[in-house]
Amino acid sequence: MKTLVVGGAGFIGSHLCDALLVKGHSVACVDDLSRGMRKNIAHLEGNGFFSFYQADASKADALSKVFSEYMPEYVFHLAANSDIQASAANPAIEYQRTYTTTFQVLSCMRKYKTKRLFFASTSAVYGDKKEATLDENTPNLSPISYYGAAKLGSEALIHAFSYMNDLSSLVFRFPNVIGPRLTHGVIFDFVRKLEKNSQELEILGDGKQTKPYLYVADLVDAIIMMMNRNGMGVSLYNVGVESGTSVTRIADILCEEMGLSDVVYRYTGGNAGWKGDVPRFCYSLEKIHEAGWAATNDSDGAVRKTVRAVIGKA
Amino acid sequence: MKTLVVGGAGFIGSHLCDALLVKGHSVACVDDLSRGMRKNIAHLEGNGFFSFYQADASKADALSKVFSEYMPEYVFHLAANSDIQASAANPAIEYQRTYTTTFQVLSCMRKYKTKRLFFASTSAVYGDKKEATLDENTPNLSPISYYGAAKLGSEALIHAFSYMNDLSSLVFRFPNVIGPRLTHGVIFDFVRKLEKNSQELEILGDGKQTKPYLYVADLVDAIIMMMNRNGMGVSLYNVGVESGTSVTRIADILCEEMGLSDVVYRYTGGNAGWKGDVPRFCYSLEKIHEAGWAATNDSDGAVRKTVRAVIGKA
Repeated sequence: MKTLVVGGAGFIGSHLCDALLVKGHSVACVDDLSRGMRKNIAHLEGNGFFSFYQADASKADALSKVFSEYMPEYVFHLAANSDIQASAANPAIEYQRTYTTTFQVLSCMRKYKTKRLFFASTSAVYGDKKEATLDENTPNLSPISYYGAAKLGSEALIHAFSYMNDLSSLVFRFPNVIGPRLTHGVIFDFVRKLEKNSQELEILGDGKQTKPYLYVADLVDAIIMMMNRNGMGVSLYNVGVESGTSVTRIADILCEEMGLSDVVYRYTGGNAGWKGDVPRFCYSLEKIHEAGWAATNDSDGAVRKTVRAVIGKA
Repeated sequence: MKTLVVGGAGFIGSHLCDALLVKGHSVACVDDLSRGMRKNIAHLEGNGFFSFYQADASKADALSKVFSEYMPEYVFHLAANSDIQASAANPAIEYQRTYTTTFQVLSCMRKYKTKRLFFASTSAVYGDKKEATLDENTPNLSPISYYGAAKLGSEALIHAFSYMNDLSSLVFRFPNVIGPRLTHGVIFDFVRKLEKNSQELEILGDGKQTKPYLYVADLVDAIIMMMNRNGMGVSLYNVGVESGTSVTRIADILCEEMGLSDVVYRYTGGNAGWKGDVPRFCYSLEKIHEAGWAATNDSDGAVRKTVRAVIGKA
C-alpha cells in the first residue's frame, strides 16, 4: 500500500517508516526537519520503496504538492511539536505545528480522496484528572497544556472530517514514548546533567511524578497490527503500559547503567516538574488489550533500554 | 468594567453590546464585518461608553492593537463563522474564523493579562448522539461538522490557556439562537421561499428535525447574570430551552404569521437537512437552571417572536 508518514523523520515517525517498509508497504516521508532529523531516515535513502519530501505540513500548498505527486492510500500523521515546555513559552508553536498540520493533512485527504488515517494523539488531552483511571470514555477532557489542547482540537477535526468525507481513522492516545532516536525529555536531561557533574543530580519536583513509559518498538507494533482493523469513522484507543516509572526511579536506572554510585539527588520540590505537566496519571488499556495488543516491555524496561541507547550501550 | 465583545456587530454579539451598556459597562466591539453588520450597532455609535474597531480577530497584529489601546478587563468572544453549510463546502472557513479567532483572542489575553473570558460554544460539539440527553459530562464528544470541530478545539484551547494563565472562563454551549437581527437559517429560508411562491414550501428532510430554539434576549440575560459568578478555571454550561420546535412546526407558525393558508409542504426526505446537521438533540439544562437561570420564552415562542421580527411585524 502507498503510505505517507507525516513527521516521518521524527523520533516515532522514523521507526514507523522502518516498520511499514518491513511489512512491504511503500513509504513516503514528509518532514520539515524542524524537529525531525535527516539522520533518522538516512538508512532508508536509496531504498526504492522509500521517498522523502522535505516540506512543512502546516502549509497547504507544500502538502498538497506531496499528495498530488504521491497520491497516498494511507496517511500516518505524526507531525507535531513534541516539546511541551517550548510551547508553554510560545503557544503559537502548537497552533502551527500541532493543530494546523492536522487541519492541512485532513484538508489534503479531503481534496485527494485519501480515505485512511492514523493519528498520534496523546494522554495530554485528558488534562490532570488526579487519581482517576482514564479510559476512552472519560468525560470533561480539559487539557492543561497548549500541546494537549492542540491535540484535542485535532481529534475534533478528525471526527468532523471523518464523518463528512467517509474516512476510516485510527487514533491512538500515546503516553510518554521513549527509545532510540529520542531527542529530549527527562532521560536526556539527566544524562546531560550527570555528564557535567556526576556527584549530584537536580530533579524537578519531588521525584514522585510517575508516568507510564512505552517503548517505541511496542508502539509501532500496535500501529501496524491495528492499521487495517478499523471500519468507517473514528476508532480511538489509549495505548501504553500498565506499569509506571517515577522520576527518581529513572535517575536510579540511569546511575546504574552509567556505573555511577553515591549520586546525591537534589529535589526542587512541588509535585509537578513544570506548569502544564501532569504529575501522575493512570491509563485504562482494556480496550486495546481486548483488541489483542499488549506491550512486551514494561515501563522500567522501556526506560532501561532507552538509557542504554542514549548513553551508547545499546 | 471595560468589556470587549469580539464579533460584537453580529447577531448575538450586538444584542450583548446593548445589554452590557444597559448594565453600565464600557463596551468595545471588534468585528471585521464579514458576517457582522454595521447596522446592528448603528444605534450605539455616539454613545460615549461604546467604541467600534473594525478588525479581523484572526489576525494577531490587528487584535493585539485593539487590546493594547483598549486594555479590556473582560472579553466576550463570539466571533465565528456562523454558517455551517458554507463551511461544509470549505472547511478552511472554520479554521480561520472559528478556531484561529479563539487562538488569537486567548493569545492577546495572555499577552495583555486580561483575566476574564466569556466564550460562545455550541451544541454542535457533542455530535450526533441520537436519543441521548446531553449534559456537560457527556463523554466522547465527536462533532460531525467542521463548525462543531472548531468550537470543540476552541474549548480545548480555553482549558489550557485558563490553566496556564489563571483565567476565569465562562463557556456556554448555545443551541440554535434566534431573534431580531438574525441573518440566516431555516426561518429566513422559509420566508424567502414563501415570498417567491406562497402556494408551496420545500422543506429539507422529513420536517421532523426538532431543535430547541432559544430567544436571543434570554441568552443575553443568561450571560449577564452569570458573567461574574465563576471562579478560576473554566465553568461550562449548556444553555437553552427544554422544549423544541420541529421544522414543520416552524413552517406552520410562519404561515400563520404571514396569513397564508393551504400552503403545500413538499419534503425532500431523509432525516437530516444536510450532511453535518444533527437531526435531533435533547439538552440537559439542569446545571444552568440550578444556577438560577431559565429562559422566559419557550422554543415555539422564540420562533414566533423571530418570525414577527423577520417579516417586520415585531
